[in-house]
Amino acid sequence: MARVIVDVMPKPEILDPQGQAIARALPSLGFDNVTSVRQGKRFEIEVDGGDPLDVANRAAEAMLANPVIEDFTVRIED
Amino acid sequence: MARVIVDVMPKPEILDPQGQAIARALPSLGFDNVTSVRQGKRFEIEVDGGDPLDVANRAAEAMLANPVIEDFTVRIED
Repeated sequence: MARVIVDVMPKPEILDPQGQAIARALPSLGFDNVTSVRQGKRFEIEVDGGDPLDVANRAAEAMLANPVIEDFTVRIED
Repeated sequence: MARVIVDVMPKPEILDPQGQAIARALPSLGFDNVTSVRQGKRFEIEVDGGDPLDVANRAAEAMLANPVIEDFTVRIED
């Protein structure tokens, strides 16, 4: 049983309204030195059998990420 | 300027319906060996000035995470 982390982020050229909304709201809470926020998703998946990284890569491609607008990385949890 | 990663995950004892929905859907795409999926959020924030980890910790506590139902970790991006 391997635990794999899949990080999914909007591609750099894609607008990220959620991140922008947070970045705009933080100064009102006193966080003046946060200059940029990008929001993505993080999945922790458990894979039982097969090549865990390969399974995670294919699952990310097929369902966890939208490859048109998102990049993803896959790694075994430390 | 430091780039800080904030990972936010539902606490282990909290139900994660998004993750469960994905876990239930994956077998229909041929992913029979994914036994568990937990879904959280990942933020990439840029901090200009101050102690970046301290700023990120406070921002996570105040806005990025809901500490009642979510755990978060903060680290400088490699």
